[in-house]
Amino acid sequence: MYTKSLAELIESFKSLPGIGERTAERLAFFVLDMDEELVINFSDALINAKKNISKCEVCNNLTEDVVCNICSSQIRNVKQLCVVEDSRSVSLFEKIGTYTGLYFVLDGLISPIDGVNPEDIGIEKLMRMIEKHDFDEIILAVKPSIEGETTSLYIKKILENMNLKVTRIASGVPVGADMEYIDKLTLMKAFSERKELE
Amino acid sequence: MYTKSLAELIESFKSLPGIGERTAERLAFFVLDMDEELVINFSDALINAKKNISKCEVCNNLTEDVVCNICSSQIRNVKQLCVVEDSRSVSLFEKIGTYTGLYFVLDGLISPIDGVNPEDIGIEKLMRMIEKHDFDEIILAVKPSIEGETTSLYIKKILENMNLKVTRIASGVPVGADMEYIDKLTLMKAFSERKELE
Repeated sequence: MYTKSLAELIESFKSLPGIGERTAERLAFFVLDMDEELVINFSDALINAKKNISKCEVCNNLTEDVVCNICSSQIRNVKQLCVVEDSRSVSLFEKIGTYTGLYFVLDGLISPIDGVNPEDIGIEKLMRMIEKHDFDEIILAVKPSIEGETTSLYIKKILENMNLKVTRIASGVPVGADMEYIDKLTLMKAFSERKELE
Repeated sequence: MYTKSLAELIESFKSLPGIGERTAERLAFFVLDMDEELVINFSDALINAKKNISKCEVCNNLTEDVVCNICSSQIRNVKQLCVVEDSRSVSLFEKIGTYTGLYFVLDGLISPIDGVNPEDIGIEKLMRMIEKHDFDEIILAVKPSIEGETTSLYIKKILENMNLKVTRIASGVPVGADMEYIDKLTLMKAFSERKELE
């Protein structure tokens, strides 16, 4: 029904997450109406991102150099390491700007049910990074799910004898959320981790 | 905060309709994890769609040839012409498959408030197509909005002396819709265009 080039463009959009048939069609038709220069830029941006971006040799964060700009920065707090599950988390945390230490980016989370074991998520590289630095605190900032808890407990265990403070970011009711929309597990967690007011 | 190549890819995604900052970031990070071959295909698909697709010389529908596959088909009903506001409508109607005549694709709808006048939407080309064919019926299938009504009335008027049946697709309560969610104008239309049961 569509011409070949249009069908191929729709298929490409459909391969992206959260983009179904209808949206893919809408986006493809939009591209046909875009200025040619913008389409060329878009096309180049896809290739360049894939070609130029790799993982930081030290921390696995995305970089266009050998070592990322956070690892090579002179103004970061080199006593703190924040362990995250993907590079998106680094971007999110950097946008907030309250954390000023270094990062280590795991290759996802441990999930035995999906066949993802500790050796698959880059924990050896994490250990190398910890050994080469003089951290005071390791902050585990992975999501509060079964996989997140498993990964946090695993890392906590292998760091046991290293005289390091290992912390986990707080989990509970999101600020501003309506109680009625909070799931049961989050509410249970919010109760069990309640804090005394000072 | 992002590396240059990643920032450029995010910007490209953001230029698409309905894609905001967050979604653009999510899509760009997804591209970084895609197989290189798929990214190359995507990049090529953008360029090819823009380069290969143009408007049918007869009806303005999208085509990779001079004349589109509907105009050049031997099995269409050449007595009916359906006038639509964009090529997407052609795709939508072809998917349903009940209409088997030819199409003419307008360049949008008349909208004096946006400075879009009858001469801007390709009505001369529509007249040329009608003159060169021997249609029995012109079906106006543009959306039921002020612009759609203005365009329909304008076309109806210029075809007045041509001894052609000019029809407009029905407007009213969508099949399966809950009455309480239907807007006032649609309900008014549904009442004023009510039909006697036979």
